[in-house]
Amino acid sequence: MKFKRFTVNDIGNLDRDFRRNFINCLSGFKSVNLCGTTDDRGNTNLAIMSSVVHLGANPALMGMVIRPSVVSRNTLENIFETGSFTFNHISSGMIRSAHQTAGRYDKGISEFNEVGLTEFFSGEITAPYVAESHLKIGLEFREKIDIKSNGTHLVVGEVVEVMLEERFISSDGIIDLEAAGTITIAGLDSYHKASKIVRLSYPRPGLELNELDWF
Amino acid sequence: MKFKRFTVNDIGNLDRDFRRNFINCLSGFKSVNLCGTTDDRGNTNLAIMSSVVHLGANPALMGMVIRPSVVSRNTLENIFETGSFTFNHISSGMIRSAHQTAGRYDKGISEFNEVGLTEFFSGEITAPYVAESHLKIGLEFREKIDIKSNGTHLVVGEVVEVMLEERFISSDGIIDLEAAGTITIAGLDSYHKASKIVRLSYPRPGLELNELDWF
Repeated sequence: MKFKRFTVNDIGNLDRDFRRNFINCLSGFKSVNLCGTTDDRGNTNLAIMSSVVHLGANPALMGMVIRPSVVSRNTLENIFETGSFTFNHISSGMIRSAHQTAGRYDKGISEFNEVGLTEFFSGEITAPYVAESHLKIGLEFREKIDIKSNGTHLVVGEVVEVMLEERFISSDGIIDLEAAGTITIAGLDSYHKASKIVRLSYPRPGLELNELDWF
Repeated sequence: MKFKRFTVNDIGNLDRDFRRNFINCLSGFKSVNLCGTTDDRGNTNLAIMSSVVHLGANPALMGMVIRPSVVSRNTLENIFETGSFTFNHISSGMIRSAHQTAGRYDKGISEFNEVGLTEFFSGEITAPYVAESHLKIGLEFREKIDIKSNGTHLVVGEVVEVMLEERFISSDGIIDLEAAGTITIAGLDSYHKASKIVRLSYPRPGLELNELDWF
């Protein structure tokens, strides 16, 4: 086994594209969602996001890191205009369409049409869902936090609507993401499916962990 | 197919444990890392974290959401004391030990010893790595951001050291996380392995996506 060690100087001296791929892989497998928004004239937008993070269960809060780029700015401006956004899980059959939403489309052009995904409006919030998605989450904007270290933003939303098939929900509330077909991403472009290993009981010092039933 | 729809009121009325499981699953598959820290007297701490997020590649920044709980407070205090922390990827054989670190151990008791993982000090930073981990990341503390909506914190660090086997790194910088054995978590307790589906080329409006080689 040959080991590689990268110091901060090594990282700074890496080729730009190499470093982008490498650093993007470091956090591990990431959640990947399609974020649906609309401006106040009804122009919809759809953007793939691999930086969605759970913040809390009560109130139900989720965050997403947004870069100050042209592509992401449309999403951010729409959230400010309408106060809502959606997260839509991606399954295997949607990967190409989802990945294509990261293209730099002009403002006013809807990624829904360009990539062949279908808008769905629930009536509960202004933002559009992706009809094809097996797990749809509607959020109301709560807070934008500036990350000074690199000029990115953390957008915080409260979950106000969730839609999925009943059979994916266990009696104790866990969602069978494997059965729902939810995929995961490594780095910027590497899509993976996930399969169950084990579910473990709540850990307490000095007590053995038990395997829990999935459903 | 029977669909379930949860409104914000439905979510508020859910059983507390059900809601905790359910909301924790919404973001999709999450990265899961062991965060190693030490206080300034050398008492080490190890905590499982499923809220690590990529923030940027240049400078290489990563964030982690920390709850204001007893367990997480030790990690946060140690980061403030020494200015550094580590993220260590978890592979299948480490799941039980990693999960057990979430137990509420008293301050001063090292989770390394309690769960049977080995401290490794690189000399580059003060914080301890997990020797058994196949991908070790060392970070220097940069910023703590308060998320007002629920009193959690986003801790931002700069990557100053990365250690892994050379064979996991592709010529263009992506890391083969499947080969490295990195696992992913759904919700609070459901561990999964990931397997490759497809790697796609950089998306541009009007252009077909190509499948990229993995290595």
